[in-house]
Amino acid sequence: MAAAITYEHIKTCKQSGARLGRVHTPHGTIETPVFMPVGTQATVKTMSPEELKEMDARIILSNTYHLFLRPGHELVREAGGLHKFMNWDRAILTDSGGFQVFSLSEMRKITEEGVHYRSHLNGDKLFLSPEVVMEIENALGPDIMMAFDECAPYPADYDYVKKSMERTTRWAERCLKSHARPHDQGLFGIVQGGMFEDLRKQSARDLTSLDFPGYAIGGLSVGEPKHLMYEMLECTVPLLPSDKPRYLMGVGSPDALIEGAIRGVDMFDCVLPTRIARNGTTMTSQGRLVVRNAQYANDFGPLDPECGCYTCRNYSRAYLRHLIKADETFGLRLTTYHNLHFLINLMGKVRQAIMDDRLLDFRDEFFEQYGLIGNEKGF
Amino acid sequence: MAAAITYEHIKTCKQSGARLGRVHTPHGTIETPVFMPVGTQATVKTMSPEELKEMDARIILSNTYHLFLRPGHELVREAGGLHKFMNWDRAILTDSGGFQVFSLSEMRKITEEGVHYRSHLNGDKLFLSPEVVMEIENALGPDIMMAFDECAPYPADYDYVKKSMERTTRWAERCLKSHARPHDQGLFGIVQGGMFEDLRKQSARDLTSLDFPGYAIGGLSVGEPKHLMYEMLECTVPLLPSDKPRYLMGVGSPDALIEGAIRGVDMFDCVLPTRIARNGTTMTSQGRLVVRNAQYANDFGPLDPECGCYTCRNYSRAYLRHLIKADETFGLRLTTYHNLHFLINLMGKVRQAIMDDRLLDFRDEFFEQYGLIGNEKGF
Ligand SMILES: [Zn+2]
Ligand SMILES: [Zn+2]
Repeated sequence: MAAAITYEHIKTCKQSGARLGRVHTPHGTIETPVFMPVGTQATVKTMSPEELKEMDARIILSNTYHLFLRPGHELVREAGGLHKFMNWDRAILTDSGGFQVFSLSEMRKITEEGVHYRSHLNGDKLFLSPEVVMEIENALGPDIMMAFDECAPYPADYDYVKKSMERTTRWAERCLKSHARPHDQGLFGIVQGGMFEDLRKQSARDLTSLDFPGYAIGGLSVGEPKHLMYEMLECTVPLLPSDKPRYLMGVGSPDALIEGAIRGVDMFDCVLPTRIARNGTTMTSQGRLVVRNAQYANDFGPLDPECGCYTCRNYSRAYLRHLIKADETFGLRLTTYHNLHFLINLMGKVRQAIMDDRLLDFRDEFFEQYGLIGNEKGF
Repeated sequence: MAAAITYEHIKTCKQSGARLGRVHTPHGTIETPVFMPVGTQATVKTMSPEELKEMDARIILSNTYHLFLRPGHELVREAGGLHKFMNWDRAILTDSGGFQVFSLSEMRKITEEGVHYRSHLNGDKLFLSPEVVMEIENALGPDIMMAFDECAPYPADYDYVKKSMERTTRWAERCLKSHARPHDQGLFGIVQGGMFEDLRKQSARDLTSLDFPGYAIGGLSVGEPKHLMYEMLECTVPLLPSDKPRYLMGVGSPDALIEGAIRGVDMFDCVLPTRIARNGTTMTSQGRLVVRNAQYANDFGPLDPECGCYTCRNYSRAYLRHLIKADETFGLRLTTYHNLHFLINLMGKVRQAIMDDRLLDFRDEFFEQYGLIGNEKGF
């Protein structure tokens, strides 16, 4: 039986060690390294599927936790799955709900069996376990689905993180066993282990032995300094199999995308570009630009003179600022469009730099122009 | 000198007396009768210009009062005018601010000279007069602009309405005199007169003697019963010149659009389709449908099976309901798109029915299918 998800390695950057490849899915091929826009509630906020295709998005992410609460996975199954429900015929990845159940829900209680918690929407008592999450993700029908994990907070002490990581591995095994659609949905295991090198290594080794079609690295970008995140990547990624895709969860600042690629990561997702767009903050070739600021009131030039996106081709900073100040939805559409285009386009440049064996040079040039030297925030 | 705005009469419906025509503007030709989407703050809420063109919108409306407050007419002038500012190269009509200054602003004081009032946004003391409004509309640069008028409330007593209507006529004369761009902007006078037949007739006669390139009928659809609005149209429209366009302000329910066309109106505008879309209320071939209602939770059919719009071709009622329940902007985009498409498409059918000399039959068929028999609300 052919695997639902396969990784094709194209080349490794001689300068940086970053890898260029392709992830093949039942809904098309993804050039990697790739940035995946987030569509939490079965929609990438303010965007249409056609707009996402226009900016060459090949895969989007949606959230199991949110869809389970609303509209419910049974309804999505009845609709013919998430692709049909939301009119998106390219690849979809769903997370496991693990991150949200630990960050959003109230009164959670973790046992070996699973997690009891209350809905953040209406207070309903709910229960998630590896088996329940597989049932949900099989009903949603994404191309790539995540095993149910516990994402430890930062900071957290060694003993807690160790116990939690080992339980995550046992849960991953239960996920593999109860996954009902391995022929058309690829299940990724999630490496945990907090900020402890030996726990990260143990997690990577244990999960690798279970032979998933791909591996995610979770529990990073949770508040730790960036150099710590990079150290964790450096001790984790080399232990992951080279013939499987590697996905760094929740990372989307331009610097971290480039640094992640340099450390061998293939896939990234983050709400950053869509979330900051909603208050008029944008990522441009010259760095971060808050277009709602008064200084742009009479600026009739494009948001980013080096950008060829729909927003930059057709509208001025003055107009964007007006729309955002006036609480007009179309302003959010335009800033969201630009930010997503910026990151997708950035990953295209990263892929070209890998092809040309010059990703370290590209990083230095990009950081210089973006004003990232000595700026930990990264966007 | 060629007039900025001209009306070309094509034919009169033998059955109803409705007229089919074309309004020629510096930004293209408009087939009439026409419905004009409203873009209050230099954007039709949630829509892109491309989407409006896709549904064949030929002209949109924007609001002088709102643009004067934010971003300011001088900024729009500096941007190269409203067309360039908002990236819309088809026709634009601006109202005069008269309606808003009387309905939104606080502490207004009317004198012969103009209106002193406070901004509803920040309480600033402001002043509008015929000369100031012409200055603003000349700066905004729409193809069609409205003379500054007082829109009397409903109900209002005869003496008040008479004084107000006569002042509106004197203001219209001052507008004509101070209008600086008659070569590329057509100024319409606004007929007032409340619900009094003799005042409507006096207003129509007085304004017609001033020879505007088009006439609006204001002060209707302000809370009066519909039959009263139709009576006012019946006594006003026949007094307006047949070689100029006639515009009924603030009317957009399907029944009133058809009844207005039957009474000789060429142009209509209303926030109704965009405003009701925002809480999930839609206009369909089978009548009003509130897609956020629970009964549509598992309805995987299109919003309107007889509609060929982007929304109905690609999404289900269940998905629309999910988006709206989840406060997702894309839901508002989709319902707004459909509602605007519905009214623009309805006017296409009205024009065809005029061409075929059967607009009264069309009205009866439409009212029957829409469930409008005995329903004053009309949508
Ligand atoms: Zn751009
Ligand atoms: Zn439709």
